[in-house]
Amino acid sequence: MEKSVVQVGKQSLSFPMAPWILESASVVGKKEGEGPLGELFDMVGEEEMFGCDSWEDAEATLQKEAFTLAVGKSNIEKWQIRYIFAGDLLGQEMASSFGLADQQIPLFGVYGACSTAGESLGLAALTVASSAADYVCAITSSHFASAEKQFRFPLAYGNQRPPSSTWTVTGSGAFLVGKDKGIAKITGITTGKIVDYGVTDSMNMGACMAPAAADTIYQNFMDFECDEQEYDKIITGDLGDVGYEILLELMKDKGFDISEKLMDCGRMIFDKESQGTNAGGSGCGCSASVLSAYILKQIKEKKWKKILFVPTGALLSPVSHNEGLSVPGIAHGVVIEG
Amino acid sequence: MEKSVVQVGKQSLSFPMAPWILESASVVGKKEGEGPLGELFDMVGEEEMFGCDSWEDAEATLQKEAFTLAVGKSNIEKWQIRYIFAGDLLGQEMASSFGLADQQIPLFGVYGACSTAGESLGLAALTVASSAADYVCAITSSHFASAEKQFRFPLAYGNQRPPSSTWTVTGSGAFLVGKDKGIAKITGITTGKIVDYGVTDSMNMGACMAPAAADTIYQNFMDFECDEQEYDKIITGDLGDVGYEILLELMKDKGFDISEKLMDCGRMIFDKESQGTNAGGSGCGCSASVLSAYILKQIKEKKWKKILFVPTGALLSPVSHNEGLSVPGIAHGVVIEG
Repeated sequence: MEKSVVQVGKQSLSFPMAPWILESASVVGKKEGEGPLGELFDMVGEEEMFGCDSWEDAEATLQKEAFTLAVGKSNIEKWQIRYIFAGDLLGQEMASSFGLADQQIPLFGVYGACSTAGESLGLAALTVASSAADYVCAITSSHFASAEKQFRFPLAYGNQRPPSSTWTVTGSGAFLVGKDKGIAKITGITTGKIVDYGVTDSMNMGACMAPAAADTIYQNFMDFECDEQEYDKIITGDLGDVGYEILLELMKDKGFDISEKLMDCGRMIFDKESQGTNAGGSGCGCSASVLSAYILKQIKEKKWKKILFVPTGALLSPVSHNEGLSVPGIAHGVVIEG
Repeated sequence: MEKSVVQVGKQSLSFPMAPWILESASVVGKKEGEGPLGELFDMVGEEEMFGCDSWEDAEATLQKEAFTLAVGKSNIEKWQIRYIFAGDLLGQEMASSFGLADQQIPLFGVYGACSTAGESLGLAALTVASSAADYVCAITSSHFASAEKQFRFPLAYGNQRPPSSTWTVTGSGAFLVGKDKGIAKITGITTGKIVDYGVTDSMNMGACMAPAAADTIYQNFMDFECDEQEYDKIITGDLGDVGYEILLELMKDKGFDISEKLMDCGRMIFDKESQGTNAGGSGCGCSASVLSAYILKQIKEKKWKKILFVPTGALLSPVSHNEGLSVPGIAHGVVIEG
């Protein structure tokens, strides 16, 4: 019997009998719906509260809707889903706890800041590849207003945002992973370590996360003995314009020119000129909703055959920021093939 | 080839070639060192700051020390550890991010409130059982002062604590899991769902978590077609006195009398009469440090052969509490055998 989970190099796994992303769904806010990818999302909210009384409840609703839509699009029933891997940016993962409680499915809460989409997909793939489950769901979310309240200033204060700042995406992406043939296969993962270059500017998260992205992409190349030519695209989570440029430089320093292959979900979801989003979008709803709505579509339409999806996370908290600590980064790579 | 991961019933897995807990370590604060289990912990801090400038940094140091001690006791080198599964109670898992960054080991952040010790051990066991890693580490922590600051009142305010309240344990437990023979085997897990009975009293976390513990223990019995006779002990995480009594009642309602088997880490770590800890200890450092220092010792000394370890978590955040929401519970079961 062939092994279904194989250790590759130092930080990677490959899945010879690869689990599939069977279906996925994306739910976003009004602003994201008005952006360049607007028409591709499954559901766009008419207003940012999504009919709720609090920002946190609105974010929980994003997860609930994304989960329900993904299951609805698939051929499987809710009771067949053995585990959910879920996470968000709020303290104690409030959006996941309150958004998914009703589903009554065993839950693994995961946290990797905006890299959580990669972490949850990676563990979902491992769970299915190892036969621990036939079907699992990976889901993440973020909400502009709940994130500003959690990490920065009250919205009514109207703080200025420097050009390096990113705009937290109001959105959620849900992915059903299983052994049946679906949209795309997860053939490997490269799990990231914490990388801390000592950047303390929470208004420049791209700079905080780029070193982690470089570390994970480089390690993926080393582990799988490949380079950027292996992939049609290398797509980071939410580095934005500043982090994007830094990542290109860091990879050049390591001997790889990935400029022809690199895309960033944070640079794709908004039109920064007309939407005033500065360096781009961020949040663990950013990479998740773009993966579901745009990236998987390209794979489904056979425009891309193999990509490296690398959600990036800035491990800051309001407390660590107030204590003047640096913002360590982490990035989790997922190899996705058509 | 025998399967190494087997789905059992609705929510459980069994591991026929069970991964072992090779070594473990516990680090606790002064108060815990003065409690009934004081002599068993590997390291007891002389003061609550552990030489640091902030409570959060002190908690990060707990994780760092527990990790270092566990590796030091074992026959393996740090570089052999392929993944860490880590979590804590602080917003954005600050203690784990800052405590483990230096180790430069790929990290899966996990969150299940005080049930995180069960979640991290479960995923660690799955990872080793599925051959995704030869060695992994599961680690969790909590700190009385960082938790009070995160969830309740400034310490200097000296708020009154009702009899139902629990005292967050200052402590961390680290567990090295691998395929070599060690202290105890993890032969199965039962992953919990969120259970919400609508309790809103954050000063009565036992009542919030007991329904989740009952749900997971009952599901473990159903999945493995057994009852309380299967186990020498059933050991919950941190229900404390109030939750302990509620759990016994809830299990009786389901047709099981577990009163002869039930122990609770929160009731074991402090002497409530002399230490003023009201209903008992709590925090994801509670069950982790008690598992390492006390429970595994009983198994090593062959006093117990098979136990069901059930860390329990209350999924509240300062924001959800302030918004008047309920405190949902979750509990993750781990079957540990000598």
